[in-house]
Amino acid sequence: MRSEFEFIQQIKKNYSLKSIGDDCAVLPKDAESDLVITADLLVQGVDFRLEWTTPEFLGHKALAVSLSDIAAMGARPKWAMLSLAVSQPVWNSDFIDEFYEGWHRLAAEFGVELVGGDVSRSPDRLVIDSIVGGEVPNGKAILRSAAKPGDSIFVTGELGGAAAGLRLLNQGHRYAASNSEEYDSLLLKQLEPIPQVNTGILLQEQRLATAMIDVSDGISSDLAHICVESAVGAKIYADRIPIRRDLKSIFKSPNEQLDMALNGGEDFELLFTADQNKISQLKSPNFTCIGAITASIGTIELVRNGRIEILQPKGYRHF
Amino acid sequence: MRSEFEFIQQIKKNYSLKSIGDDCAVLPKDAESDLVITADLLVQGVDFRLEWTTPEFLGHKALAVSLSDIAAMGARPKWAMLSLAVSQPVWNSDFIDEFYEGWHRLAAEFGVELVGGDVSRSPDRLVIDSIVGGEVPNGKAILRSAAKPGDSIFVTGELGGAAAGLRLLNQGHRYAASNSEEYDSLLLKQLEPIPQVNTGILLQEQRLATAMIDVSDGISSDLAHICVESAVGAKIYADRIPIRRDLKSIFKSPNEQLDMALNGGEDFELLFTADQNKISQLKSPNFTCIGAITASIGTIELVRNGRIEILQPKGYRHF
Repeated sequence: MRSEFEFIQQIKKNYSLKSIGDDCAVLPKDAESDLVITADLLVQGVDFRLEWTTPEFLGHKALAVSLSDIAAMGARPKWAMLSLAVSQPVWNSDFIDEFYEGWHRLAAEFGVELVGGDVSRSPDRLVIDSIVGGEVPNGKAILRSAAKPGDSIFVTGELGGAAAGLRLLNQGHRYAASNSEEYDSLLLKQLEPIPQVNTGILLQEQRLATAMIDVSDGISSDLAHICVESAVGAKIYADRIPIRRDLKSIFKSPNEQLDMALNGGEDFELLFTADQNKISQLKSPNFTCIGAITASIGTIELVRNGRIEILQPKGYRHF
Repeated sequence: MRSEFEFIQQIKKNYSLKSIGDDCAVLPKDAESDLVITADLLVQGVDFRLEWTTPEFLGHKALAVSLSDIAAMGARPKWAMLSLAVSQPVWNSDFIDEFYEGWHRLAAEFGVELVGGDVSRSPDRLVIDSIVGGEVPNGKAILRSAAKPGDSIFVTGELGGAAAGLRLLNQGHRYAASNSEEYDSLLLKQLEPIPQVNTGILLQEQRLATAMIDVSDGISSDLAHICVESAVGAKIYADRIPIRRDLKSIFKSPNEQLDMALNGGEDFELLFTADQNKISQLKSPNFTCIGAITASIGTIELVRNGRIEILQPKGYRHF
């Protein structure tokens, strides 16, 4: 069976589509800027569960996942559209108002204006399509395809928190239901992720990143996307992966911790390649170097306890 | 309970959103052009049924409804995105390839390129969000809000065909299942509608239309949108409504015919207001004058058999 990535590659090839395959489409806008656009479809029961979240969190997250795609291009978000398929009971409740409240709070933080969308009735499931447009100086969008052997590989923040939050939700934990601070912090990372918009813009403005992607599927998959698009390989080190601290205090197995950090996804951090020296000069404690790009096309090596294993992309796939 | 239109008005007011409420959002692009964008969400079982259509027709229609919105602004479509929530059995079949084949055939006709989108898994229903971007000279997008008392009201083509096609589908008829030519023609109008893109561009380039909307909900509702946004009223004449000819040979009741033409929706013709003299000079047999804009804010009068009745918006509503 085709994966969603294979399907996209096939459509792209069959119909000679050039703008498809990155976090956002990049389209010419004017003499200074390119337009970048992304769409993210969230389906109740697959991408979220109403029992696990609140309308405000869901509104926030629907926008955050798209802002994260804009961030991964080094672009500045500008406007958004929302398409919602809503069941009659949900429509009759305060859900949509609260959803939009959460959406708007995040939008206001980044100066994003809602300019359109659509409302349809759904017989049952809530479905959300979140569309965001942004701008980046002409030709300066940071693509997945420009990593070069010798580049160092960096991630922002810490990894595995969203996966740990998802695990806690699956175990029956809920946000703010007399949990400890660690539990709530991990649940928030899953339910109300913070897109790294300003970091993406910084990396673009200072010409620091050669290639970039956001951590949405899990870095084992997201790094594989960079390697495929750039026709390179990668070598990363298990002991350099910045595993979320509060995760470690709840999930004690080092293997489990590493699995969450590598394959968990939805952390919405940025994974980028860059010249090590340039990043060192920045002195940002927010960036961790986890390895380097190699010439072994398509192969990701994971160095773990002094041994090298081949890392398979085990991040989230819809198909 | 709020209608979808009331919800949109409320959101617009609460958050001071200016770009919402027309067929497309209009955003500044460059020194010459504005960008127009639209999103249309189609939900299986609500907006379409797989038993009634083919994957190719559905792909065509998903794009057509958005191209029709672009046409209603007088804009030229340029690019598109597709977000699809697909069940595992549909994913495993040839459905998506055939869907995209139908989508692409229409896209190629208008030079529209697929630039992005998203694929998600759906546990059951197919959900499609169709996003199209287009361009129109700066400040020249034809809005719903610029109709003036005294303007004549025109529609392109004939009305009621899509509603008649829907009725036939409901009655068990299927396209190309040894029907007469009239049946197939009405079924096609419902399943594979033709967006009036070139007519929209013509009306814009020649500065003919003062306000415009596409006939998606039914003209009783679509004309009401123009009246509300323009703060005007309208008077239309039943005997001038161009009822689709092949509809009349199947549905004999004049009341039923008029109801389909006024309230049926999905004809994806254009409804526009203009100076009668300018349109007369065009000598286009494709435009029918059905009445005129009045100063009676929000009231649509229907003149029928010499009597005036107030026309209520009875077109399609999701809520």
